[in-house]
Amino acid sequence: MHKVIFDTDPGVDDAMALLFLHRHPAIDLVGITTVFGNASVETTTRNALFLKRSWDIAAPVAKGIGETLDSERPHVGWPTSVHGDDGLGNIDVPSEIDLPLDPRPAHRFIIDTVRANPGEVTLVAVGRMTNLARALRDDPAIAALVKSVVIMGGAFDVPGNITPAAEANIHGDPEAADLVMTAPWPVTVIGLDVTMRTVMTRSMLSDIAERGGAPARLLCDISQFYVDFYEQHVEDGMVVHDSCACAYVVAPDLFRTRSGAIRVICGGIADGQTIQKPDGRLFPPNAWDGLPSQRACIGIDAGAVLSLIGETLANGR
Amino acid sequence: MHKVIFDTDPGVDDAMALLFLHRHPAIDLVGITTVFGNASVETTTRNALFLKRSWDIAAPVAKGIGETLDSERPHVGWPTSVHGDDGLGNIDVPSEIDLPLDPRPAHRFIIDTVRANPGEVTLVAVGRMTNLARALRDDPAIAALVKSVVIMGGAFDVPGNITPAAEANIHGDPEAADLVMTAPWPVTVIGLDVTMRTVMTRSMLSDIAERGGAPARLLCDISQFYVDFYEQHVEDGMVVHDSCACAYVVAPDLFRTRSGAIRVICGGIADGQTIQKPDGRLFPPNAWDGLPSQRACIGIDAGAVLSLIGETLANGR
Ligand SMILES: [Ca+2]
Ligand SMILES: [Ca+2]
Repeated sequence: MHKVIFDTDPGVDDAMALLFLHRHPAIDLVGITTVFGNASVETTTRNALFLKRSWDIAAPVAKGIGETLDSERPHVGWPTSVHGDDGLGNIDVPSEIDLPLDPRPAHRFIIDTVRANPGEVTLVAVGRMTNLARALRDDPAIAALVKSVVIMGGAFDVPGNITPAAEANIHGDPEAADLVMTAPWPVTVIGLDVTMRTVMTRSMLSDIAERGGAPARLLCDISQFYVDFYEQHVEDGMVVHDSCACAYVVAPDLFRTRSGAIRVICGGIADGQTIQKPDGRLFPPNAWDGLPSQRACIGIDAGAVLSLIGETLANGR
Repeated sequence: MHKVIFDTDPGVDDAMALLFLHRHPAIDLVGITTVFGNASVETTTRNALFLKRSWDIAAPVAKGIGETLDSERPHVGWPTSVHGDDGLGNIDVPSEIDLPLDPRPAHRFIIDTVRANPGEVTLVAVGRMTNLARALRDDPAIAALVKSVVIMGGAFDVPGNITPAAEANIHGDPEAADLVMTAPWPVTVIGLDVTMRTVMTRSMLSDIAERGGAPARLLCDISQFYVDFYEQHVEDGMVVHDSCACAYVVAPDLFRTRSGAIRVICGGIADGQTIQKPDGRLFPPNAWDGLPSQRACIGIDAGAVLSLIGETLANGR
């Protein structure tokens, strides 16, 4: 069993990833921490509670702080054209959900849970890296106590999506991401190199809705707006960014990774770009030297990952 | 016939490229302009004169100014481990060559030659972009008068060589390179994406030396030091970076290019990185918008390019 804290900004593809974690038999979801990105942290937290209630998820929800690690960074607006005004595809999410939040801020929840389960917790982070960075900053020693960190974000050998250089999760808090990537814990980064190739068609989505009961039907409803948005980028269907990171936790063999230190560009026109120094390549002294080697995903068996996601979403526990 | 000005920092692979331009029947080499990079501009200019005399090249040599476009940039030392202390593989180049220089600085030579041959001149730039940028800055109207610009430099979908982000020619003067890439003239960038795959083996080099007479034997002598250096990076032989750009001029069909605006990162840990916004990809407003679409080479028929280079070097005119 993988004990997972899911750090998320729901978000349509976040919702799918959450249902995947909830339904996969090898995942023990021990907490949901919210971050801003696809919408404000108020909205993403409300959405997390909405999904927790709708899907009867036991894990507590801890709300993140709605500010980038460097508080001077200007705010750039929410991607309502991708995820809808409510962050869940404009399905009329109730404005308040009558469920308690964990009393701790997200980063404190992460620290406490990691310390209570040394060597056992996998952090799956599919929004901005703000909460993970705050946790590291407040308690750097947790790096040695986390089992692994799996991130959806970044773009290594392909263009970004929010700019030609940067992917949105990383671009949303580059200083946080640089701290997370360079900390001495094992990080695997699942970026656009592989997620853009992992497209769930409308017909796969309908099939999941038919087979997976009410939770899957809700997921399918949430996803329609996002699929419509993505029509300008991919042929037909839904790029399942965040679910790819969850699939990696249970099926790393379906991914090909490259090892090497990873830095995030902070500032300038490449703001938020992820750059890896592949292990074994020789360079003059540079800003990647001496940093831990992390894994960047550069290959995926997209068909197998989509099957894994589809089967997990369609079958209850 | 292609009228070519060769902007160069000889440099071992520059020497090969120069002999290629000199010997290819479809090239009319109308000038050699020197820039610093592989060595100081005094050394690269001396080397250009040495090669002009050794190979009986008619084209004049015009010396560049030994300073980056932004004169505040710190100097970082010459790559003597790659090209030798003399820039030509430590073959004991005479310290002075008794040949006259063109009286004009390199950028003025470029401006005058382009203006004298409107629409006809191809600039092949295989060192730092300093001279081309100075020419543009002094006379922006030449952009419309140049036939095309072919650059060896940059790294798009692969790591750099001087840092994990940047290739050496671009890293050596990023402000100049950004000006050159974003100017309204047609630029093709032949970077590490293709040059690192184009490796001339020691046996090909010996064969050229045997068949190509004294000029080819000199080239082979010059190249030994560089081949030895590259043993840590490639299996056997010489990465013919600069000759790839020359081959593109006469045989563009052997290359695959991608269109889109190109920017160069100036400053920070990605200093000198080249980033393209591929045409047809959609992004929110960004720093690439409204700039001319240029060509980045992302594919090469390396075998055919090596044959073309080998045959051209081995056969006199
Ligand atoms: Ca997300
Ligand atoms: Ca050169």
